[in-house]
Amino acid sequence: MQDLLIRNIRPMGAEAQDILIRAGRIAAIGKGLAAEGATIEDGAGAIAIPTLADTHTHLDKTTWGMPWYPGRKGGSLQDLIDNERNSRIPLGLDVHRQSMRHAIQLVENGTGHIRSHVDIDTDHGLSLLEGKLATRTALADAVDMQIVAFPQSGLMKRPGTYELMDEALAMGADVVGGLDPSSMDRDPKGSLDAIFRLAEKHGKPIDIHLHEYGELGAFTLEEIIARTHALGMQGLVGVSHCFCLGMPDPLRVGPLMEEVAKADIRIFTTGHPSAEVPSLQDMRAAGIKVGLGCDGIRDTWGPWGQPDMLHRARIVGMKNRMRRDDELELLLDAASRGGVEAMGLEAPGLVPGAPGDLTLVAGETLAHAVVEEAPRPLVVKRGRVVARAGRIALPGVVMP
Amino acid sequence: MQDLLIRNIRPMGAEAQDILIRAGRIAAIGKGLAAEGATIEDGAGAIAIPTLADTHTHLDKTTWGMPWYPGRKGGSLQDLIDNERNSRIPLGLDVHRQSMRHAIQLVENGTGHIRSHVDIDTDHGLSLLEGKLATRTALADAVDMQIVAFPQSGLMKRPGTYELMDEALAMGADVVGGLDPSSMDRDPKGSLDAIFRLAEKHGKPIDIHLHEYGELGAFTLEEIIARTHALGMQGLVGVSHCFCLGMPDPLRVGPLMEEVAKADIRIFTTGHPSAEVPSLQDMRAAGIKVGLGCDGIRDTWGPWGQPDMLHRARIVGMKNRMRRDDELELLLDAASRGGVEAMGLEAPGLVPGAPGDLTLVAGETLAHAVVEEAPRPLVVKRGRVVARAGRIALPGVVMP
Repeated sequence: MQDLLIRNIRPMGAEAQDILIRAGRIAAIGKGLAAEGATIEDGAGAIAIPTLADTHTHLDKTTWGMPWYPGRKGGSLQDLIDNERNSRIPLGLDVHRQSMRHAIQLVENGTGHIRSHVDIDTDHGLSLLEGKLATRTALADAVDMQIVAFPQSGLMKRPGTYELMDEALAMGADVVGGLDPSSMDRDPKGSLDAIFRLAEKHGKPIDIHLHEYGELGAFTLEEIIARTHALGMQGLVGVSHCFCLGMPDPLRVGPLMEEVAKADIRIFTTGHPSAEVPSLQDMRAAGIKVGLGCDGIRDTWGPWGQPDMLHRARIVGMKNRMRRDDELELLLDAASRGGVEAMGLEAPGLVPGAPGDLTLVAGETLAHAVVEEAPRPLVVKRGRVVARAGRIALPGVVMP
Repeated sequence: MQDLLIRNIRPMGAEAQDILIRAGRIAAIGKGLAAEGATIEDGAGAIAIPTLADTHTHLDKTTWGMPWYPGRKGGSLQDLIDNERNSRIPLGLDVHRQSMRHAIQLVENGTGHIRSHVDIDTDHGLSLLEGKLATRTALADAVDMQIVAFPQSGLMKRPGTYELMDEALAMGADVVGGLDPSSMDRDPKGSLDAIFRLAEKHGKPIDIHLHEYGELGAFTLEEIIARTHALGMQGLVGVSHCFCLGMPDPLRVGPLMEEVAKADIRIFTTGHPSAEVPSLQDMRAAGIKVGLGCDGIRDTWGPWGQPDMLHRARIVGMKNRMRRDDELELLLDAASRGGVEAMGLEAPGLVPGAPGDLTLVAGETLAHAVVEEAPRPLVVKRGRVVARAGRIALPGVVMP
């Protein structure tokens, strides 16, 4: 592959210089770099950061680009789950097409890593996973995608789901998912034992949706922590949402965060606007590795969201009452490098030797870049330009 | 003034028809309308709604278009207030220029009514008000602007502020403002008596910032309700934020909302992402007239926000866990017609005889229009096109 030399960029907001990417990795950062035969790009003085990471999304759910979906419901989590499961086929929600639309826009907006859950249920079997695997293959040059086999309709409640999860992990799903072992599965011991058993069998990490609030969530989290230690899975377990760490009692939350950090459990947060969410600042101060995610975008659950991690970072930042530049810089790190680290991948930042994944962003400073609504001028994956001025620019990849 | 005939629009999402505006008011809505000599616009099948209303903002605060401001602080409300008051002059924050930038963008995004607070303090005297009055005059054809004389640094705490408020109201401020009579002014009786005395003297309505949480806020709110009844000011008093109505106790909040409705006190909410906010659905169900507002945009307080009421509506909708189409329609009404009504102005919606204020919006349905991020194709104020494709289009008005 040709070298890529991007001239006149500001790495992490520093003064303007060049960056050379060779064989997919950053070879040099400095002034007046030269590389014979390299593809040359002009960065026009824009700030460069590592690519963004959407560490919690559902590429199999969006209705983006389809006719407006008027059938959204209120009601319980179970109602929303049932509405979606029963709507997919009548709606014609083709997972490959829809996940392409969703993921391509994430790439256009500077995303280089995605962790996406995919529903595994006894109605749809593995068909949704198949659609998403096709998308991962189609976009392999643009984005690194981890797929979580996610028992959206319950693991214990619907017999046959465990076996489907087992098959999904054999087929190429990277991560064992789970959903509210207490409040949804109604059997925390059974549910968690099953999740960890699958992880052990397949040698794969775990990422459990935990919406459970307050003490119920804390109880389930304690059970997750205990199993993480017992099975030596430190660094391989993630908890998504983890609203219980947003409890208002600091005397309960502080020690819990310490336990999460000790077990090296990763937390994936979306900054849910209408829920109690764990403080990003406090989690980072406790040493927890945190990723941010856009979650579902305009799906049968809700109309909200944009396939853009800076949009999501703003939601997380507002939710966490971040104001100062240093807070916005922490936020941007969590939306990019920190999220990749939380996914269990190499994430050294923009330094020589690092993966050649970067995006240019609009703005005078890193803090400004978080809030400025503007297309990403250039997105680079492993030393190859994949998007330009907010549009996919990878040969053979077209928005469906 | 020439008549304006807009062809091929969908009023409130209905089937395509035409709308005729004559002498600043809607003269007819129907199919195949004709009007000799009228200016003709093609609506291209877009949905038309009444113009949006930003009922709570601070046009005198934004740093938009200035160099990135890195000096934001954490700390108490008092720290943020002091930081702003001490920064205005060193920063070169010219209120006329900045409020033009802010208000023109609101207009470009379909806003036809603005209620803006302006700081009145003993450091700046009436100079900030003067800048904003100039902006109101410059944009008189594009937007109706109510200016609230706002004692940002305290009414009781800084002697001389009352007299400045009195002058501001004589100079052209439309509304008497106030700020946390208990927690900031530390003298709820003195502060509220002063505010209501100014309102009585000038015959002007009231709009009080009430950030006070929980029981303290409820206490202050009860005092506001009592004075509203005692002075016969039903319909003329507004409370902005009113976080206390976001208390988690429905047995306390329900009856309080009923009292607010009985006194016809208007509530202006921004859906503050990191605060407990009153439920929009519950307030409307209780019969309270509610306006939404963008609040400060990228000012010395915080980096967040966009000068766009649909952007704000999305924040309010997510905060209130709105999902269904009927909820999004309620939200859109609060962001437009409902807000104008809460400001005390005529707001019948898009019907013959109504003021000729409308904006076209992108989207297949009203609900879709709330979430779709796209420029407003056409904005009309009193029968005159004021913005087109998201850009101001009013002769003589240029973005500074």
